Amino acid sequence: MTQKIAIIGLGSMGFGMAKSILAAGHHAYGFDVNSEAVGRFVALGGQTGQVSEMAPAMDCVMVVVLNATQTETVLFGDGTNAGAGTAWAQHLRPGTTIISCATVPPDFARTMAAKAADLGLNYLDAPISGGSIKAEAGRLSVLASGAEVAFKKAKPALDAVAEHVFALGSEVGAGSAMKSINQILCGVHIAAMAEAMTFGMTQGVSPAQTLEVISKCAGTSWMFENRGAHVVAGDYKPHSSVNIWLKDLGIALDIAGKAKFSAPLTAVALQQFVAASGSGYGLEDDAAVAKIYARNAGLKLPGEG
Amino acid sequence: MTQKIAIIGLGSMGFGMAKSILAAGHHAYGFDVNSEAVGRFVALGGQTGQVSEMAPAMDCVMVVVLNATQTETVLFGDGTNAGAGTAWAQHLRPGTTIISCATVPPDFARTMAAKAADLGLNYLDAPISGGSIKAEAGRLSVLASGAEVAFKKAKPALDAVAEHVFALGSEVGAGSAMKSINQILCGVHIAAMAEAMTFGMTQGVSPAQTLEVISKCAGTSWMFENRGAHVVAGDYKPHSSVNIWLKDLGIALDIAGKAKFSAPLTAVALQQFVAASGSGYGLEDDAAVAKIYARNAGLKLPGEG
Repeated sequence: MTQKIAIIGLGSMGFGMAKSILAAGHHAYGFDVNSEAVGRFVALGGQTGQVSEMAPAMDCVMVVVLNATQTETVLFGDGTNAGAGTAWAQHLRPGTTIISCATVPPDFARTMAAKAADLGLNYLDAPISGGSIKAEAGRLSVLASGAEVAFKKAKPALDAVAEHVFALGSEVGAGSAMKSINQILCGVHIAAMAEAMTFGMTQGVSPAQTLEVISKCAGTSWMFENRGAHVVAGDYKPHSSVNIWLKDLGIALDIAGKAKFSAPLTAVALQQFVAASGSGYGLEDDAAVAKIYARNAGLKLPGEG
Repeated sequence: MTQKIAIIGLGSMGFGMAKSILAAGHHAYGFDVNSEAVGRFVALGGQTGQVSEMAPAMDCVMVVVLNATQTETVLFGDGTNAGAGTAWAQHLRPGTTIISCATVPPDFARTMAAKAADLGLNYLDAPISGGSIKAEAGRLSVLASGAEVAFKKAKPALDAVAEHVFALGSEVGAGSAMKSINQILCGVHIAAMAEAMTFGMTQGVSPAQTLEVISKCAGTSWMFENRGAHVVAGDYKPHSSVNIWLKDLGIALDIAGKAKFSAPLTAVALQQFVAASGSGYGLEDDAAVAKIYARNAGLKLPGEG
């Protein structure tokens, strides 16, 4: 069933998802404060426009911005955030479904859902996992929770962007909780990859050898194989940046602290990403956390002079 | 080519490997200080005997004991370690190959190889990865380094126990270095699994839900899926025990410290295993590190009263 779907936020994830929605045959409308990204999307056959004019026509709105603040601004802001649009919620028809994809605290998701409900809107708490390449291939994992009607109305959009949609129950917040569990593991695994590869270098084992061998041993992880290849190639073009982890592990530790949950590995991994950001690598690929380990041990990574 | 192969150490790994060697049609000779394990092996068709009588007949000797001290004792000890045998090296024919499988520091492996060379023996630095189930299935990964002649003579034994044999060069020590890289990742990943699963419980997400969903997300790892299943089942029968990590992460940190390499995730993971051991879980499956996280947050894991 062809739908009118707005994608708010055309960063690396949102742009890929917008392309997948176009490819699935829907009418896709892209919005971003970055007009260059909007232009690229229109050149691919996407549409755009003024929020107040376009919003009432939408079946579904996917919010793929960076964080909780941006999510709140585009949905319930005061109208000053030109381009990406703001105050979307007040322009949507009652019964329209908001699919919220940013990584946010579960409590924040519940607050947004309550505000949406006050306007007669459906809200799906739907963080995504998989990275920009899977976004563009329509092969993301979506960790979703919300009312049955929200799932039903979101289905065409989710089918276009996702290989796996995990239905985590009717309570908004469960999706965001699962996303934080995933981010704890991803963040720790990226830092562990960096720690293990650079440790290996001190023992005369190259990152390429480590990647080849450990990928077939019990020490492997999805992130080890994915991000380890970036270290081996000396390629730090950002797919997911170092700074993402300051945000996402920060959210996880904040939730954990409120629950009186001690998360020492998460805390240490965060500090390694903080050191990477503080050293000027914040906008590089998150595999650049390896540069902290290497520098602290006087090592030169592949691709370093 | 049928060979005479001695397996020294019939613990959970060695026993499985000895069975795989029998199954491959070799003459397999088992030795252990635990006479009950030797009896079980003989009941399966294996052989045993006195070291001084049996050693000269062997083509190959696999040392599958717990650590460096035991490795040195069985190879070069003074004869007091009855049963498993001791002073093996002095009874072996020159040209016989020693396959050393325990997790040990690379420097230790080099020392053993030099002592073996003095007696005209070949030495393969060949730590193993994969656990007791893969040992019994003949599907281990072997991380091996040593002279070409050692690889050649070890091939029949390795083919019987391993799915992957990684040839890491002619320098003894490279195999042990790769094993430590693997153990850093495995140890951190097990503790990260425990941290993430119990964190999820504070957010209303059950370990079973976490295992199901994260296994299909970027947060997964080999250890997450393998050991996470133990937590979900509440099953802490030891496949690999908590105490193994006090040893193996201790070796990794010792090597790292000598190389002036800072390994904060490894250090934190080790401390969580130390806390598990100190709490009385040292001989349980290493997934029992989850009990430390759960207790510190007032949570009850699956299977706990």
